[in-house]
Amino acid sequence: MNTVPAPLSSTPSEHLLDRLAAIVGSAHVLAAAADTLRYETDYRGVFPGACRAVVRPASTEQVARVVAACAAAGVALVPQGGNTGLVGGSTPDESRTEVVLSLDRMRAVRRVDALDGAMTVEAGCTVQAAQEAAAEVGRLFPLSLASEGSATIGGVFSTNAGGEQVLRYGNARDLALGIEVVLADGRVLDLLGALRKDNTGYDLKQLFIGAEGTLGIVTAVTVKLFPRPRKVVTAWVAVPDPQAAVQLLARLTEAVGERVTAFELIGSGALALVLEHAAPGMRAPLGEVHAWSVLFDVSEVSAGLDPTPAVEEVLAVAIEQGLVIDAALAASERQAHDFWALREHVPEAQRSEGPSIKHDISVAVSRIPAFIEQADPALRALLPGVRIVCFGHVGDGNLHYNQSMPEGMGKADFLAVEQAMHALVHDTAVRLHGSISAEHGIGRLKLDAFVRYKPPVALDTMARIKRALDPANTFNPGRLLPQSLLDPR
Amino acid sequence: MNTVPAPLSSTPSEHLLDRLAAIVGSAHVLAAAADTLRYETDYRGVFPGACRAVVRPASTEQVARVVAACAAAGVALVPQGGNTGLVGGSTPDESRTEVVLSLDRMRAVRRVDALDGAMTVEAGCTVQAAQEAAAEVGRLFPLSLASEGSATIGGVFSTNAGGEQVLRYGNARDLALGIEVVLADGRVLDLLGALRKDNTGYDLKQLFIGAEGTLGIVTAVTVKLFPRPRKVVTAWVAVPDPQAAVQLLARLTEAVGERVTAFELIGSGALALVLEHAAPGMRAPLGEVHAWSVLFDVSEVSAGLDPTPAVEEVLAVAIEQGLVIDAALAASERQAHDFWALREHVPEAQRSEGPSIKHDISVAVSRIPAFIEQADPALRALLPGVRIVCFGHVGDGNLHYNQSMPEGMGKADFLAVEQAMHALVHDTAVRLHGSISAEHGIGRLKLDAFVRYKPPVALDTMARIKRALDPANTFNPGRLLPQSLLDPR
Repeated sequence: MNTVPAPLSSTPSEHLLDRLAAIVGSAHVLAAAADTLRYETDYRGVFPGACRAVVRPASTEQVARVVAACAAAGVALVPQGGNTGLVGGSTPDESRTEVVLSLDRMRAVRRVDALDGAMTVEAGCTVQAAQEAAAEVGRLFPLSLASEGSATIGGVFSTNAGGEQVLRYGNARDLALGIEVVLADGRVLDLLGALRKDNTGYDLKQLFIGAEGTLGIVTAVTVKLFPRPRKVVTAWVAVPDPQAAVQLLARLTEAVGERVTAFELIGSGALALVLEHAAPGMRAPLGEVHAWSVLFDVSEVSAGLDPTPAVEEVLAVAIEQGLVIDAALAASERQAHDFWALREHVPEAQRSEGPSIKHDISVAVSRIPAFIEQADPALRALLPGVRIVCFGHVGDGNLHYNQSMPEGMGKADFLAVEQAMHALVHDTAVRLHGSISAEHGIGRLKLDAFVRYKPPVALDTMARIKRALDPANTFNPGRLLPQSLLDPR
Repeated sequence: MNTVPAPLSSTPSEHLLDRLAAIVGSAHVLAAAADTLRYETDYRGVFPGACRAVVRPASTEQVARVVAACAAAGVALVPQGGNTGLVGGSTPDESRTEVVLSLDRMRAVRRVDALDGAMTVEAGCTVQAAQEAAAEVGRLFPLSLASEGSATIGGVFSTNAGGEQVLRYGNARDLALGIEVVLADGRVLDLLGALRKDNTGYDLKQLFIGAEGTLGIVTAVTVKLFPRPRKVVTAWVAVPDPQAAVQLLARLTEAVGERVTAFELIGSGALALVLEHAAPGMRAPLGEVHAWSVLFDVSEVSAGLDPTPAVEEVLAVAIEQGLVIDAALAASERQAHDFWALREHVPEAQRSEGPSIKHDISVAVSRIPAFIEQADPALRALLPGVRIVCFGHVGDGNLHYNQSMPEGMGKADFLAVEQAMHALVHDTAVRLHGSISAEHGIGRLKLDAFVRYKPPVALDTMARIKRALDPANTFNPGRLLPQSLLDPR
């Protein structure tokens, strides 16, 4: 198995650019700096890059021809959707040799079938547009995340995005019925279709989902649709500690089962920041900032069945027993929206505070309290005064466990401890059998941590698959799998 | 990528058998015909085989050493769980060169965690024992199929088994949180863990699930657990045609959402056979055998919420509109059990009628009526008098679409048309964008059809993966992927 990967990318020739223009039309091969700029830097601005060109095919067939041409020339392709990724996986490096393959012209909703609960959507369609297409036939496409207005179907499936309704509906990979992918040799692997059951060979679609564009170019996905909830009970709840939050989740699940659609934990540091930078009218739902808040949704599709009494009873008993300090049920959709706005403004509020150090860890739900109990004091010992901004999808065992600078500290001093903080947080998660990247992926940002924490047998198995499907390393080289893993031994 | 696969198996030497005995204990290397017999023939008796030995390791570490020893000797391993597969994937060929790797000593439930909804179970544990372990902590392990008393966790995940609750809980692959696999070089890939979110690289576990033992030996799985339903509404419903059944499913889903746990269709041919061969006390729930019957479960986990009125209303409206002819709700658990017994006795009743020709097709749910409308008359034209035994998991788009001999026909005459019938049924399913194997897999039984209907690009991609992970073709050679696909081009 000593297939030798090519260098990361050859320099694209003028001849290649002409060929690409012949395939997609010259208006859709962007090479001027003014045109390529918005494709070159990642959402967070951590990886400023420079590509040789951006190519924008309009169909699967054009993608296939672009791939074949670039592969033949040894030129690396960086697939890009809405460019909302957080780990530098969808933007070019600084070499000016890579070509960005933007799917932004492939936005069609090819087919929606309410009866089968299936919809086929092209890669460049935004998540929001997909949600809207489902709603038009009375169905729910449940993938939902802050960037849904820009994030695309190709992107969210290539990165196995999570978001706010994973607890009930699963990650992106759980929402795929079929996929269409262009392979490294330019052939099209058409695995679209709306089958709920199909045991004919390896489930190839799951290999491309979450592969961050390193195994093939996702051009379309058939997604699952669900009945739309008719009633959503939204609650804001103060709890004494994370352990109480986890216990509350267990009781809610016991009482109303999988109707628990979202279950978020928000630490006082996160809530205080939001209120400090709040838009007019934003206020703490319970009047004060408690040490820990929980925001949850319980949703019900059946018109005749109302889970509100069951939720109220769980909360009443929990208050009596000290598991919950105080709780408010949203009295209207408007109020539910306001509760959620607090949660959604955490990243923005943290941005207003200057540089931050971010983590996206997961552990088994029951270990969330242990994670916080171990990581919090260790971080405070490492950097006295550090402000811990802890929030996230606790129902999925996933915390966005971030740090802002101590008051009065300089940026350079803060960033000097960044690596030590990463190591501390990741060590803690991994010691608790957790993950260093719950939903954001690896990209370029987490390559080192990925290689440090992932078992070598798993890394080697992934490298074998990459070499088997993309032997010349055409697709997103240097992302997800470090080059060192692909080099011949 | 011209890795040359080894011949299917070298003949195991006495020296190898001694090494295996040293690893697992001589009592657990079976070589006498009387001892190996029950491991050598598949459940349906279609593939009588003969192995060189059966080796029964007691731990993952022993499996790893057995694999390393056999791989080094070029000897093929045929992994086997409960040996309940229907496509000849888990029994040896007739060459006496293969070694059966039975997981039947690895039966431990390693860990059950009610709070996290996760349980780690070894490969040889039966599905029923796993269900019981979950029930002991008040949780549901929802995988359920007729053979659950014998079928094992390793087997059902290696084949991505379906069963009776797929509509709500998904196939086996949807129920896996983690997996432990022994690779072809004898290394252990430990991907156990109970994370709901983990975006660190390719989702390797999905590659081994449904791979029918061709990529690695599954030694343990971490499965998802669910809240247990507190109330199940079971109904037996007569409908005029399959179209009405599909419409009834849509209305039920609209009314009670994902509470629809099972939705089965039973044709008159299937029900008549069951009643003909019925155990004492079995009777048609509605007094007579209607052309089409539906059996469904609606389940509810919440103690305070009863979906019965919503179900009754759907049925009342459907009866008024002629969509449903008649319906009976089970008045007790006992009666619900009796309804389900009718459905579960179909295969046995068909066996009593002599030879049968079986299919396990799937199409999108909305295309079930079209499939039946196209396949039924074509089969009757091909073989006048053929008895069509049509039943299955219509909620998943999956039919067990079987044929029994016309009255008075000889077995040889019937089997003479077997290939033509397969072709007709499979052509019909594929023309409707369906699958030739919804839940049973490929094994050896469906190799030809698999190669005929699967797109060459998909076959080639699977072959690349097989060559990358099992270059010497140690694991289950000749099953799932025909040797011709693996030979050098």
